[in-house]
Amino acid sequence: MNTANDAPSLGQTLMARLDEAATFSRPGPGVTRLFCSEEHRQVLEPIGDWMRQAGLEPSLDASGNLVGRNPRAIAGEKTLILGSHQDTVTEGGKYDGMLGVALPLVALQALKEQDVELPYGVEVVAFGDEEGTRFQSTLIGSRALAGTLDDESLAARDAEGISVAEAIQAFGGEPEAIPDLARRPEQVLGFVEVHIEQGPVLESREHAVGVVTALTGIERQRVSVTGKAGHAGTTPMAGRRDALVGAAEMVVEADRLLQATDNFVGVVGKLEVRPNAVNVIPSEVTFTLELRSPDAETRARGREEILSAFRRLAEARGLEVAIERTYAAEAVACAEWLIEVLEEACDGAGEPAERMFSGAGHDGLAMHDLTDIGMLFVRCRDGLSHHPDEAITAEDAERATRVMMQFLRAMASRV
Amino acid sequence: MNTANDAPSLGQTLMARLDEAATFSRPGPGVTRLFCSEEHRQVLEPIGDWMRQAGLEPSLDASGNLVGRNPRAIAGEKTLILGSHQDTVTEGGKYDGMLGVALPLVALQALKEQDVELPYGVEVVAFGDEEGTRFQSTLIGSRALAGTLDDESLAARDAEGISVAEAIQAFGGEPEAIPDLARRPEQVLGFVEVHIEQGPVLESREHAVGVVTALTGIERQRVSVTGKAGHAGTTPMAGRRDALVGAAEMVVEADRLLQATDNFVGVVGKLEVRPNAVNVIPSEVTFTLELRSPDAETRARGREEILSAFRRLAEARGLEVAIERTYAAEAVACAEWLIEVLEEACDGAGEPAERMFSGAGHDGLAMHDLTDIGMLFVRCRDGLSHHPDEAITAEDAERATRVMMQFLRAMASRV
Repeated sequence: MNTANDAPSLGQTLMARLDEAATFSRPGPGVTRLFCSEEHRQVLEPIGDWMRQAGLEPSLDASGNLVGRNPRAIAGEKTLILGSHQDTVTEGGKYDGMLGVALPLVALQALKEQDVELPYGVEVVAFGDEEGTRFQSTLIGSRALAGTLDDESLAARDAEGISVAEAIQAFGGEPEAIPDLARRPEQVLGFVEVHIEQGPVLESREHAVGVVTALTGIERQRVSVTGKAGHAGTTPMAGRRDALVGAAEMVVEADRLLQATDNFVGVVGKLEVRPNAVNVIPSEVTFTLELRSPDAETRARGREEILSAFRRLAEARGLEVAIERTYAAEAVACAEWLIEVLEEACDGAGEPAERMFSGAGHDGLAMHDLTDIGMLFVRCRDGLSHHPDEAITAEDAERATRVMMQFLRAMASRV
Repeated sequence: MNTANDAPSLGQTLMARLDEAATFSRPGPGVTRLFCSEEHRQVLEPIGDWMRQAGLEPSLDASGNLVGRNPRAIAGEKTLILGSHQDTVTEGGKYDGMLGVALPLVALQALKEQDVELPYGVEVVAFGDEEGTRFQSTLIGSRALAGTLDDESLAARDAEGISVAEAIQAFGGEPEAIPDLARRPEQVLGFVEVHIEQGPVLESREHAVGVVTALTGIERQRVSVTGKAGHAGTTPMAGRRDALVGAAEMVVEADRLLQATDNFVGVVGKLEVRPNAVNVIPSEVTFTLELRSPDAETRARGREEILSAFRRLAEARGLEVAIERTYAAEAVACAEWLIEVLEEACDGAGEPAERMFSGAGHDGLAMHDLTDIGMLFVRCRDGLSHHPDEAITAEDAERATRVMMQFLRAMASRV
C-alpha cells in the first residue's frame, strides 16, 4: 500500500497506532487491558498524543474516560461525540474498542492536515469501561456521559473486593463528581462509533464497512431442569428422570427453532450438571439461554415458542423446569438521519455499504439515552472477536478512515 | 416385630448395630466414613465386639481390613469368606457396605446361640476400602486378599497428597506385608457378600431378597466434541459449529439407544462446556459415557451403535469428535453352585427369590480372581443408595438374616 517516497497511508498509520496500543496489556496471549488498571493508565499516554495531533485537547474525566475536545467543543458549541472503549475482555484482540478511538483521531488529523476546519464541536472519547471484564458492571464510561450511571454500579466489586468507586478514585478520577459529567442533550449533535463487526456478515458481502441500523435487544434466561439422581448401574433405564437427557433435548430444540427464524439468534452458552459424576444419573442441570433480535416482537414470539417447548419436553420426561429471566435490554435503533449521513459518506468514499444490525451491545446502548446514535462497522477476519487472533486489514482500515473523513465533512451541513 | 417379654428380633439387633455404626461418620448429612480415617478406626471397635459375640477372633490385617476368624479358620481349615466394606461414599447411607459386615455376624451369633457348630472355617471381613472415595483407587481391601493389589494402587494419593501406603501405615497396617495377605485358592470355599440392591428391582418384585447371577461389566468412554467458539450475538445461526448442540444430540441419541436395548444400561453423568460463558458459542464439550451390561456381547454391540451415532452426528454439524475408553471391567459371573445354595437357603427360609444381575460393582469383582463368589441382594427403599436417605426395613433385615442362617447351614454339605 505504501509506495516509495510516500508518507505512510492513513491505514498504515492507524494499524501502527493499534499495534502500539496493544502493547499495553497484561502479560499473556492477546490483549488484556482492564478498567483502571496500570495498562489503562499507560495506554492513555499515546491516545493523548494522538488527540493533540488531531487538534483536540485531552483530559481525564471524573469517571476514568479520556476525553479529547476541539476548540469549538471547549467553547461550548454543539458537539459531535465520537469514540469507543479502551478496555478489552480477558485475552481479547487489538481492535474491539480501540479501533473506534484511534480511527476518528486519524481521520481528524488528516482533515486538519488538509486545513479543513469542522464548523462544530468534536469530542473523541476513550471510554474507560465497556466490556465489564473487571467488574460485574458494563458501560461505565458511556453511562457516566449519559447521566445514567447509578450508585449500584459504582458499588460493584472486582475479584479482589475493590469497588468501582475505589478503583476510579485510585485511578485519579473522582467518583462523587460523576453526576456532573452528564451532557445536556441540547449540546450534543449525536454519538457515532466505529467498531469491528465481530461477525462474518461483511466478509460474506465482500464489503469493508456496513452501516448499523440497530443494536440488538438481548435477554437471558436461566433454566433449571430437575430430575432424580440415581445409581447409573442399578436404576433400570425405563424409570429414570435424567435431567441431562431432558436438558439436552431442550438445547437441540432451542437451536432448531432459532435456525428457523430470521433476525433471531441465540445460544445455550453455559451449562452445568449436578452431581456431575461419571456413574450418577444427573439430578439437576442449569443452563443459560441468551436470545437476541433487533426486533422486539420477533424476540418475544421466539422466546415463547422456545420456552413452551422446554415445558413440554420437561413434562414428557417427568422433569421439573424452572425458568427465570435474568437480564433484558431492549433493542436500540440508530437515528435514521445518522444512518443516512453515514451512507452518504460511504458513497462519497466509493465504499459499497449496506445496512445491517449489530448482534452485540456497544457504548451506543448507553449513549442512546442521551442522544441520537450511529455506528459504522468494519469487516474483521473470520468474524472473529474477543480473541487474540481478532484482525482487520490495513486496506480496510484505510477505507473506513476515508469514510469517517467524508462523514465528518458531511456533518458540516447538519449542524 | 418385638412382642412383650421377647428378646429383640434378629432384624432389630441388626438395625441397631447399623445405626450404631452410622454414628462413626464425618459431620454432615448421612454417613461419610473414609478409608483409614479416624471414623474408620472408631467403627472397628463395635465390629470387633460383634465378631467376638459371633465366636470369631478379630484382627486388623496389613491392608486395613478387620478380619474375624472362627477357630476352624484359625486352624487352617477350608474357609468360607463373608463380608463387605466399611467405607462409604461422601454423604452416603447406613447400609451400603456395612450391611454385609453386620448381617453375617448377627447370623453367626444366632447359630452359635442355637449351639450350631459349622463344620468349616468362617471369616467375616470388614474391607477397609471398596468405594474409592478417598483415593482414586477402589477395592483395596478385597484386592489385598485376592493378591491383586498392585504398587500403582498403593501409590495413589488423596486430596491432601497422602498415598494409600502412607495412610495404611499411619492406620496401623503394614503396606510391605500386603502381598502376604493373598489367600491360597485351595484354602477358600468361596466368597459370599450380602448387599443392598441399590436399585428398584426387588421393590417392584415385592421380594425381600434376590440372588445375584453376575456383576455387570462396566466401561467408560470420554467423549470430546470440538466446534468453534464465536460471539453469540454476531455469528449468524447458519454458520455455527456449536459443540454443545452437537453434544446434546449425542446425549439424546445415547439415551434412546440404551432405552431400546435389554440388559444394557448407561449414562452421560458428567458433562463440561468450554468456555461456558453466557454469550459465547461453546467451542468444546467433554462428557463421559458409562455403559454396563452383564453380557459382554450386548455391551460391545451397544457401544458400537452409540459411538457410530456420535461420529455421524458430529460429522453432520462439522464438529470433531474424539472418543477414548478410560475404563473397562469385564462382567463377573457368580458361581452356579453358590447361586444354587443361596436359592436353597431362600427356599428354606420361606423367602421367594429370583435371580438378578448386579448393575454395580462390588468386592466380588476382586474376590472373583481368588475364588467362587456369590451375592445376596436385600431390597432397599426407592432403589436409593449413595444417599443419606438410603433405607431398608427391619423386617427385611430379619428375613435376610434368616436366609443367611439357612445358607450357613446348607454350606455344611458343600465342604
